[in-house]
Amino acid sequence: MPFRMNGEYKEFHLVAEPVVRELGPGMAANLWGYNGQSPGPTIEVVEGDKIRIFLTNKLPEHTSIHWHGQRLPNGMDGVAGLNQVAVHPGKTFVYEFEAKRPGTFMYHPHADEMTQMAMGMMGFWVTHPKNEHPWISAVDRDYCILLNAFDIVPGSETPNIMTMLDFNLWAWNSRIFPGIAPLVARKNDRVRVRVGNLTMTNHPIHVHGIEFEVTGTDGGPTRPESRWKEVTTDIAVGQMRQIEFLAEEEGDWAMHCHKSHHSMNAMGHDVPTMIGVDHRGITEKIRKLVPDYMVMGERGMADMTEMTMPLPDNTLPMMTGDGPYGSVEMGGMFSMLKVRADLAPDDYSDPGWYKHPEGHQAYEYNGDLPELSRQLTPGNSLMAPKSQLASAHFKAVKPTRHKG
Amino acid sequence: MPFRMNGEYKEFHLVAEPVVRELGPGMAANLWGYNGQSPGPTIEVVEGDKIRIFLTNKLPEHTSIHWHGQRLPNGMDGVAGLNQVAVHPGKTFVYEFEAKRPGTFMYHPHADEMTQMAMGMMGFWVTHPKNEHPWISAVDRDYCILLNAFDIVPGSETPNIMTMLDFNLWAWNSRIFPGIAPLVARKNDRVRVRVGNLTMTNHPIHVHGIEFEVTGTDGGPTRPESRWKEVTTDIAVGQMRQIEFLAEEEGDWAMHCHKSHHSMNAMGHDVPTMIGVDHRGITEKIRKLVPDYMVMGERGMADMTEMTMPLPDNTLPMMTGDGPYGSVEMGGMFSMLKVRADLAPDDYSDPGWYKHPEGHQAYEYNGDLPELSRQLTPGNSLMAPKSQLASAHFKAVKPTRHKG
Amino acid sequence: MPFRMNGEYKEFHLVAEPVVRELGPGMAANLWGYNGQSPGPTIEVVEGDKIRIFLTNKLPEHTSIHWHGQRLPNGMDGVAGLNQVAVHPGKTFVYEFEAKRPGTFMYHPHADEMTQMAMGMMGFWVTHPKNEHPWISAVDRDYCILLNAFDIVPGSETPNIMTMLDFNLWAWNSRIFPGIAPLVARKNDRVRVRVGNLTMTNHPIHVHGIEFEVTGTDGGPTRPESRWKEVTTDIAVGQMRQIEFLAEEEGDWAMHCHKSHHSMNAMGHDVPTMIGVDHRGITEKIRKLVPDYMVMGERGMADMTEMTMPLPDNTLPMMTGDGPYGSVEMGGMFSMLKVRADLAPDDYSDPGWYKHPEGHQAYEYNGDLPELSRQLTPGNSLMAPKSQLASAHFKAVKPTRHKG
Repeated sequence: MPFRMNGEYKEFHLVAEPVVRELGPGMAANLWGYNGQSPGPTIEVVEGDKIRIFLTNKLPEHTSIHWHGQRLPNGMDGVAGLNQVAVHPGKTFVYEFEAKRPGTFMYHPHADEMTQMAMGMMGFWVTHPKNEHPWISAVDRDYCILLNAFDIVPGSETPNIMTMLDFNLWAWNSRIFPGIAPLVARKNDRVRVRVGNLTMTNHPIHVHGIEFEVTGTDGGPTRPESRWKEVTTDIAVGQMRQIEFLAEEEGDWAMHCHKSHHSMNAMGHDVPTMIGVDHRGITEKIRKLVPDYMVMGERGMADMTEMTMPLPDNTLPMMTGDGPYGSVEMGGMFSMLKVRADLAPDDYSDPGWYKHPEGHQAYEYNGDLPELSRQLTPGNSLMAPKSQLASAHFKAVKPTRHKG
Repeated sequence: MPFRMNGEYKEFHLVAEPVVRELGPGMAANLWGYNGQSPGPTIEVVEGDKIRIFLTNKLPEHTSIHWHGQRLPNGMDGVAGLNQVAVHPGKTFVYEFEAKRPGTFMYHPHADEMTQMAMGMMGFWVTHPKNEHPWISAVDRDYCILLNAFDIVPGSETPNIMTMLDFNLWAWNSRIFPGIAPLVARKNDRVRVRVGNLTMTNHPIHVHGIEFEVTGTDGGPTRPESRWKEVTTDIAVGQMRQIEFLAEEEGDWAMHCHKSHHSMNAMGHDVPTMIGVDHRGITEKIRKLVPDYMVMGERGMADMTEMTMPLPDNTLPMMTGDGPYGSVEMGGMFSMLKVRADLAPDDYSDPGWYKHPEGHQAYEYNGDLPELSRQLTPGNSLMAPKSQLASAHFKAVKPTRHKG
Repeated sequence: MPFRMNGEYKEFHLVAEPVVRELGPGMAANLWGYNGQSPGPTIEVVEGDKIRIFLTNKLPEHTSIHWHGQRLPNGMDGVAGLNQVAVHPGKTFVYEFEAKRPGTFMYHPHADEMTQMAMGMMGFWVTHPKNEHPWISAVDRDYCILLNAFDIVPGSETPNIMTMLDFNLWAWNSRIFPGIAPLVARKNDRVRVRVGNLTMTNHPIHVHGIEFEVTGTDGGPTRPESRWKEVTTDIAVGQMRQIEFLAEEEGDWAMHCHKSHHSMNAMGHDVPTMIGVDHRGITEKIRKLVPDYMVMGERGMADMTEMTMPLPDNTLPMMTGDGPYGSVEMGGMFSMLKVRADLAPDDYSDPGWYKHPEGHQAYEYNGDLPELSRQLTPGNSLMAPKSQLASAHFKAVKPTRHKG
């Protein structure tokens, strides 16, 4: 985000206002944001900078900004009613403080907070360290993701701001896969991904192909000896996590929230199950009466990616996102880490799909097969003796015993 | 909680019984608790104490108490059916064990557990260390908060004990903001807050103005080298966390669950969105027919704090809680950390609202403004070329590179 | 799981297919799994092994397998569409990679993932370390638990795969208490429990009677100095945790998810509360008209364990599970850790119920009682002065002060 210098202060201007955001290809939403976008622009400063931010309110109701994670004077903390009067429509207010701690922060309203965050008002703040710090590594790539969620009835455009649990659009930076750019890294780059959560539930962020460590929170960098190797880190609401890893393995690696509904798209969660119900013939008959009639999911949901059922206007289909080998059947909080050895210098644009080396990809097979282990025979497990079932459901593995 | 000495035993008496609890100003609930309150009284003992607790059951059904986190004989662990017969109405049972580990614990029923915890049966247990311990700091202030949640239909008084997800009252110690006292500390006090969660979901507890560390769990104190600086710690159901910090910054600092619905109050989560719908004129016409008629939220929800819509009896309004500068628009799991340099010796009573020093508070501004960064123009972002959108939704920040 | 050696490769064969799984005594479900069971067989290999897995698809839709947590070539990672073409019904595909890291892993589909995991497709993978590792302890007992959840309407047999939040069956290894075997350990055994979560929410796993440490994740073993003593660890979706402890205390210790609804069984979460409503007499009158009529829960829910209300076919009652002292009123994600000093050598079969030594069990009492502490009198707390309430709801405990 651009700023102007004014004496020793870096000055920024944020305008709180209604915005239209393309959540994904073919779907726009009426959100509230800053400077024409949701999330607002990312503020980048250096430790020790003196900061002055002008907040102009062009919303239909009052607002304020809380500078999540910053050390600052109490009167600059932005809780309307408690630390300041709310900024009424048409007014401009000023916040001034020093960027005391390096790290990963957020900004968001602290006035009618539930509404304004449900409408998309939030932004990232990165304070770079002034000097080397033993717990902060130099990195080659540094990404920012704000997790947010919306409840927009299919065919409509404005989030329902009263929803507590049953959101249907799960987004990164107010964008939904396949509308999310990949994260690109050169082989052996050190990559940092900063993630903040302003939804209403935990998001376990999972990265394929590597192990990462949490190197910092919105409270500061973590001590190296405290860090765990992980492939999934759970990010709670109002938490921020810096994860870091070496991009040691080439390829296109999936990266997503591990809650399976969050890597889907707009959907009704209360559709009854049709698995095992045979509708053949019936559908054709009903279609003579109701031309668009379809039955979802009698053989699972994968057919959805091929179906031609018309959608309401301004709706994202579920499980879209084509890859090089067909649909990846994902949506929502999903993207890819693309690691390549052969990127041109300083070129981190999308390198396209990974070409797998000969013999390094799952392949079809028609030869003979090893003995099949069937501990329970389908169709009669209900009648199996209880002792057999009991031994089956805890699979005690052989304990590790070291010599000596 | 008072006790009597009997030989080498400290003896406590807990009576499980129906209680009426004022959840907040103007709203009472029919709960179940101990000794006339929910949560029950906090039991404080010293490491190595021998404890005898009498549990008298004045509920209409059987109960028991599980001493969450304690090392004790299996027959004292309190799981009805497994470790003991349930305590039937009218009976008194005895539990005896030594307080072996210093730390933060809970007690709650382990008989018809879902019902009895949903009705408010729970209490804190603190075992103080007998000797100095390298991982346990001396503190100046030591607070206890039990997170609990209720589902009480507006206008009624008794929790729905079958609710799994859609609670509408989010409480600390069965109290709801603005009915929760502030946490008061002298500047540079070391403050400990012990938090336990007996709801049905995670609560990310966020403190403004400082960074804290988790210094202990119900399993024991944490090693200092394992601790992270945080501003939000996620507390899962059945977990306890001791957080500690230096109260270095004066002021009135918000402290709350970061899930925005949890820092609200009794509400219906299924009200449709009205943002952007213009009801002017229509409301007045309808009011001629229906005098109390109101439309909620066409310009957001902040108007709610000023509205005069009559509420059902025994209901808390949403987003109440007045501060020195108007409504803080909060309820539920919200309080304040009040840090002052000028408290009288040993006086930790509420010091009133913080007076911000000159020049240390957000202020209104009417001068010229720096250049506005609008990466997307409102109203036409839908038409923006996709490449521009793609570059907008991941905001890669400049990577940190150290010299050498 | 058995394998065959083929040159330097260990070869396994997994068949994805519909299975019938007995979730608990008297309830079967139509699931999808591997080799006749859900979860599929546990794959056990040694660090450095070269692995070849044949996946045959006998489902009605395409599938694939993602090897969660493994380091492997990108083309073997199993995300259909992205890393490979999906495996269509009737086909067999081959995955080949080296088991590079010792640890705890999962396998599950990455094609129509939401459906296929909701139907039960998942399995455990354990890679034993080849050599001693300073962060990996030898253990005497080593258990594997996959957390899964289903939404099956009472009386039906097939999960609703669209459910996002409101599951009614909470399972370990697709089994539900009292259908879950106990974990048996000899006194002072070192016990490891490996837990993975493939539901849609966090599960805080609580063990009574001991404290444990998280010794590893699906990203690798944890550094010893980073570990916390805990009694409840929160396991997010897509996370795996190895917990370890010394079984120092004899007895039958409850072990369960601490979300109280998750240690129940099939139930409707929207039944209204009846606590405090007196139905005596009315029920009898209605029964003359509707013979099976019952009112649930006017005195709490414990009566449910004794009631004779007929259940729909193929339904598990709530809160079953008899212990030595009556119903333990639990179901779902609940089991027991049974620690005994006197197990026969190498015999870890269920030792039956623990016999409590004399004087080591809660007992009934009819003597005199210590002074009762009633900070709030029931029935009038609503009228108590607000200052008294305010002091009641934060129970500040005496701060710890060390000398000097």
